[in-house]
Amino acid sequence: MPPRLDEYAQVARDLGVDAVALVPGPNFTRALGHSFMSNERPFLAVIPAEGPPAAIVPNLELKSWELVGFPGTTHDWRDQDGYMGAFRALAQSHPVRRLAVEGQVMRVFVHHALKAAMPDLEIIDAEREISGLRMVKTAEEIAALEEAIAISERALARVLEDVRPGQTETQVEHALIQALFAEGADGMAFPPIVAAGDNSARPHAHARADYAIQPGDALLFDFGATRHGFCADITRTVFIGQATEEARAVYDTVLRANLKGFEVTRAGVTAHEIDDAVTGVLEASPFADRIRTKTGHGLGRDVHEAPYIMRGNHMPLPAGTVYTNEPGLYGPGAFGVRIEDDVLVTETGCRSLTTFPKDLMIVG
Amino acid sequence: MPPRLDEYAQVARDLGVDAVALVPGPNFTRALGHSFMSNERPFLAVIPAEGPPAAIVPNLELKSWELVGFPGTTHDWRDQDGYMGAFRALAQSHPVRRLAVEGQVMRVFVHHALKAAMPDLEIIDAEREISGLRMVKTAEEIAALEEAIAISERALARVLEDVRPGQTETQVEHALIQALFAEGADGMAFPPIVAAGDNSARPHAHARADYAIQPGDALLFDFGATRHGFCADITRTVFIGQATEEARAVYDTVLRANLKGFEVTRAGVTAHEIDDAVTGVLEASPFADRIRTKTGHGLGRDVHEAPYIMRGNHMPLPAGTVYTNEPGLYGPGAFGVRIEDDVLVTETGCRSLTTFPKDLMIVG
Repeated sequence: MPPRLDEYAQVARDLGVDAVALVPGPNFTRALGHSFMSNERPFLAVIPAEGPPAAIVPNLELKSWELVGFPGTTHDWRDQDGYMGAFRALAQSHPVRRLAVEGQVMRVFVHHALKAAMPDLEIIDAEREISGLRMVKTAEEIAALEEAIAISERALARVLEDVRPGQTETQVEHALIQALFAEGADGMAFPPIVAAGDNSARPHAHARADYAIQPGDALLFDFGATRHGFCADITRTVFIGQATEEARAVYDTVLRANLKGFEVTRAGVTAHEIDDAVTGVLEASPFADRIRTKTGHGLGRDVHEAPYIMRGNHMPLPAGTVYTNEPGLYGPGAFGVRIEDDVLVTETGCRSLTTFPKDLMIVG
Repeated sequence: MPPRLDEYAQVARDLGVDAVALVPGPNFTRALGHSFMSNERPFLAVIPAEGPPAAIVPNLELKSWELVGFPGTTHDWRDQDGYMGAFRALAQSHPVRRLAVEGQVMRVFVHHALKAAMPDLEIIDAEREISGLRMVKTAEEIAALEEAIAISERALARVLEDVRPGQTETQVEHALIQALFAEGADGMAFPPIVAAGDNSARPHAHARADYAIQPGDALLFDFGATRHGFCADITRTVFIGQATEEARAVYDTVLRANLKGFEVTRAGVTAHEIDDAVTGVLEASPFADRIRTKTGHGLGRDVHEAPYIMRGNHMPLPAGTVYTNEPGLYGPGAFGVRIEDDVLVTETGCRSLTTFPKDLMIVG
């Protein structure tokens, strides 16, 4: 079995289950070296603890599937016949009783098809163990992240040159998207957040077509390019024309929290300890009631992945982990500030893959 | 209860289940009038057959959730506490025994959290009934589709002006993406397919950075903008510099199949009958061994949705349905041709929302 696939067989052995199942998404791409669409057609790779793997593949994907050089049994199925035959063939070729799946990726229709073909099957959510294999990044993966981040930073610099009061949030959002692709993005890690004024106080705001940016507004950008399958995720908050004393005090608090995250990060620190240190800065400030989120999340092929940087997660971070350090303060009905960097954990400390300046910036 | 939500309560009554559950995605957006991110945080709306609804909402989304004006109980949860408390609160406020879910959208971790909070719960995949509510489009929705399609067509026209032998597939893909956003796309319905030569024979090909387009190549574009939450989905296949006799014969066959689809479409025709007519043209040709796919799929908020235009689907299509008419022929190792239009079913026939020319086109 190729070494990459054997890592998933090892997860099955570690968990004491019969096999690991992967569906199209970041783990599937990593395991098989090729990406496939996740759509209404079930597509599944089953990697047993011991022995050769199996796959269920939509017939129309067979030409692309050949590129994988899959070292096991492929059960294909055609639209006109439906997919249950392929699931029954899988039950014959690879009878399993306990199956570990990616709970955040596999959808209920695949879960139900597995159960219909194997009524005694126990389906275990092993998202943490399966996706955990992606946590430590290779040098090549870090280079892809850096490329995605550099593209994103150049796009933001372009957009900030042109931001003016009177533009709508959606106008600025469209300018940002065009700049991302002009700078070489393969895609977007997620639909960008461009939020001004009171909208910036919503952590997952949508750009508004009917709100024109005003002098004095906070303007929050949260976005990222993808490059070679890896995601950037950056937030910067700027102010239009001027910033009040309160805005400056909030900004300074968030920046100190963000810097504290860098201070405490090194291989072996736990996610809990990072969040505790970062959130502790916010809690010690006069703005503690404006905390809404944890410090951050892992970043890689997926824009939200392990490790989640939150209190209660006592997982020590190995060197090679990349996470987002993104404290924020959200004043309901007023304005929000978030500063987000992508951080590489190293043996002796950490390195910010994000290099965009984070001193308070007045634009427009 | 607002009329839109009551449509889902009606689905629950029709199915004889206690409630319908929706998670972020196209049905959620349609039901609640606002879109939310699907990520590692469970987010759920439960609409009972009778009585007020309930929701599980990540605490950091509460400010955005206020915009919904949700007429029921909201159980929020914070990252640091985890989400099981909210599921147990839901089990208390809305005890259900039989729950209909969107099997193509809900993921296993939400399924498992529901089962953990309500061990006797039966979770029924009602994707067809729930998403079926999206099948008939309103005038406003058709206008959004037309806007997305017009943007996509202008982008393709731009790109075709500049295509030249020697460009790589990824260069052309990047040019297409930039043109989409320059023409006003809100986003992309899916990562575009730009495939030349033998790659065009893979129905879901990936653009290659190391393949330069050659004279005589088929060059297939399958892509679409999104606009106001609705997806375009268009395919055109052109030839670089010249087309062989075989290429012309294949193209002509695919075009005749596509035109046959328009001929047989009117309200009341079944998906089976359309696929049978379209695929019948391909089967009667000398290229029958190059058939790989069904005729098409519904199109709307999702790029693949009901109805699936395939033999065996005997659902009559009501007026207001929009589907893709996309026959193709894929010669392994040689070239593929696909022509895809977005078709609105009307009482008396149909109307192509796609207007891009489909006579064989030589470019470059």
